Amino acid sequence: MVCEILSVGTELLLGQVANTDAQYLSQRLSALGISVYRHTVVGDNEARLDEALKLALSRSDTVIMTGGLGPTEDDLTKETMAAHFKRKMLLDAASLTHIHEFMSRAGRPVNENSKKQAMFPEGAHIMPNELGTAPGCVLEADGKLCAVLPGPPRELKRMFENYLQSYLEARTDSTLYSRYLHIFGLGEPVVENMLSDLFHLGTPTLALYCSVCEVTARISALIDKRARPDKAIDDVAREIKRRVGDALYAEGLEESMASTVKKMLASRGETVAMAESCTGGLLASALVDLPGASNVLGEGYVTYSNASKSRILGVKPETLEKYGAVSRECALEMALGARALSKADWALSVTGIAGPDGATRDKPVGLVYMAIAGARGASATERLFSGGRDNVRIASVKTALNTLRLKMLEYDGHK
Amino acid sequence: MVCEILSVGTELLLGQVANTDAQYLSQRLSALGISVYRHTVVGDNEARLDEALKLALSRSDTVIMTGGLGPTEDDLTKETMAAHFKRKMLLDAASLTHIHEFMSRAGRPVNENSKKQAMFPEGAHIMPNELGTAPGCVLEADGKLCAVLPGPPRELKRMFENYLQSYLEARTDSTLYSRYLHIFGLGEPVVENMLSDLFHLGTPTLALYCSVCEVTARISALIDKRARPDKAIDDVAREIKRRVGDALYAEGLEESMASTVKKMLASRGETVAMAESCTGGLLASALVDLPGASNVLGEGYVTYSNASKSRILGVKPETLEKYGAVSRECALEMALGARALSKADWALSVTGIAGPDGATRDKPVGLVYMAIAGARGASATERLFSGGRDNVRIASVKTALNTLRLKMLEYDGHK
Repeated sequence: MVCEILSVGTELLLGQVANTDAQYLSQRLSALGISVYRHTVVGDNEARLDEALKLALSRSDTVIMTGGLGPTEDDLTKETMAAHFKRKMLLDAASLTHIHEFMSRAGRPVNENSKKQAMFPEGAHIMPNELGTAPGCVLEADGKLCAVLPGPPRELKRMFENYLQSYLEARTDSTLYSRYLHIFGLGEPVVENMLSDLFHLGTPTLALYCSVCEVTARISALIDKRARPDKAIDDVAREIKRRVGDALYAEGLEESMASTVKKMLASRGETVAMAESCTGGLLASALVDLPGASNVLGEGYVTYSNASKSRILGVKPETLEKYGAVSRECALEMALGARALSKADWALSVTGIAGPDGATRDKPVGLVYMAIAGARGASATERLFSGGRDNVRIASVKTALNTLRLKMLEYDGHK
Repeated sequence: MVCEILSVGTELLLGQVANTDAQYLSQRLSALGISVYRHTVVGDNEARLDEALKLALSRSDTVIMTGGLGPTEDDLTKETMAAHFKRKMLLDAASLTHIHEFMSRAGRPVNENSKKQAMFPEGAHIMPNELGTAPGCVLEADGKLCAVLPGPPRELKRMFENYLQSYLEARTDSTLYSRYLHIFGLGEPVVENMLSDLFHLGTPTLALYCSVCEVTARISALIDKRARPDKAIDDVAREIKRRVGDALYAEGLEESMASTVKKMLASRGETVAMAESCTGGLLASALVDLPGASNVLGEGYVTYSNASKSRILGVKPETLEKYGAVSRECALEMALGARALSKADWALSVTGIAGPDGATRDKPVGLVYMAIAGARGASATERLFSGGRDNVRIASVKTALNTLRLKMLEYDGHK
């Protein structure tokens, strides 16, 4: 099955948004074993859209279009599709009812334009939009499969997951079976070197994806979808685990350092408190981002000023004077103070120079101290992160969470 | 000048990265008054790349290619370009020297493959790569302009800014002059309705872009690049300001609600403290995200548990019992407590149900109370946000900051 993604929207051609819809669909299609050969973007222009659709259908058996399903005259995707396949546009009463209900729930006035969103090419299979007013559809004709999804990423994802994915799955024989291993703090060149022989196995294939402070290894193989997952994939996963050790912090596409630490805390029935300077609330927020965070995080303190570090967390003025706020000593007192104040099982602290200002002769931008306090005492870590203010803050959050993860593993080992 | 962007890379078709290069170039080209009609992505496949390049050159006078400039055999962009224009590939000695120097600085071994990166189609204008080993080039031939840029976004941006931009500028007569007005809390349909007559002026053009809780109006016109900015644009901007009033919170592409509030606080020499429940540190972090935040934010409290709301901020247990933690009364006590504790000029609080869990019969997911405390007392706001946990949290942060903005305006008016 060869597929092209055809995205419609002048906002893409003006660079107002990145084409994350094409990225998401490409990931999902490749996971279904469907090859994506091209992405195309055109604006809200009938002639160019029609030309692009013709071309895409002439060389691929599946075309997925995104965007251009709005209620205005500019929105032409379904109409162009109908014209190409010589189908009439018909009103779908159920879709119209759904759109009217959706709009009245959102307190928006129902108008004539809504009707346009409930019209579909004759013979199309309609896909409801659970998060908006633009339903999608799939049409199979002339040996081709042509699907239309709404442009807003939330709506597109929900519709793909709930409708289009199973529709496509039923039409393919193979599926891409993948495992994702998340590796923290080693750096891409190091991981690449540690696993170099595993890149040339043929099947399964191994690929590395990098983000701040971490590398995700994807092991995958295209298998018959009625067959059982390939044992060879599990063998490679086991070998990677053996080589990288504790740097492997989680497995699974959806996992993150924060979700891993949250699960570990929850399973131990423990809590953590945060004391933050340069991360300014981002560390607490990384846990609160996750549903059910209240079981593991009761409170946090953003102590950005020196005065607040002393007044709230009890950092000694002498410590600030002698070592400065960006120091191992200050980080330790912040973590100890937060743990005492919150009565949490653990406390994490971060103090550093995120930049672009604030550097001194001895303390460059990117210098961050992170400390952890637990039942058996406290310890601090020094790091020099690169890459600008956002990067320093994200790296600090992940590294602080990782020290908690490692400490929990250490405590477990010592039990 | 009509342009297409042709991106090359299998990683784009697998969805490993979004095509942010095309987004960036589209922004920059539209600012130069160059119309971008299509984006195309193909993989590292010679036949499909050649076909795409032919097609792009047949319908546009300018084609900018990104990616495929690496040292391996897979990397085919320059070679395909040379073949299309029937040019030989020639070695550029200066580029080779630069590549060797770059690699030895990075501690990477120099090998035969580097030579490939220093080869260019005969007659091409070479653009140095200051951040990597892949130089780009521009070739003008057969009445077309064809440029090649490296795929890594940092390298592409630097090369565009330092070389390609001025190259293109010299070949265009006009430039796109734009103003951006940021409007908070009115919703797209309302803004669209308020400004409906301004969409049909011809020149300047008006476009609306939405993000959580806000709408940005862009007014733009293509003008002769030696002329002065169009007065008509300023007239439309003035008219929009008159119609939307205080909902207009800032002007300029780079501004945000957080940067606006930070500037207002800084110019008044005032500070704010944050007391957060469901936003979990995101509100404080929105200010700490910005360089120089220490002048306006000294501290914040993440009081996620009920116990911490009472212990840290002094919320009365009776309040929690009678009204619950998600209530106007609790929000007010949180803000008053935070202001007293921090001695900041202002305090903001947020308490709500971000979901997916936590809703009760009376309190649905998305219900959020935000309070503000200042020198003249405190007040609270109730909102029901939609759109999932992330959306509720981001909407809460922006709305809380907006209440502070409006309160500062109110205090100013009363002085």
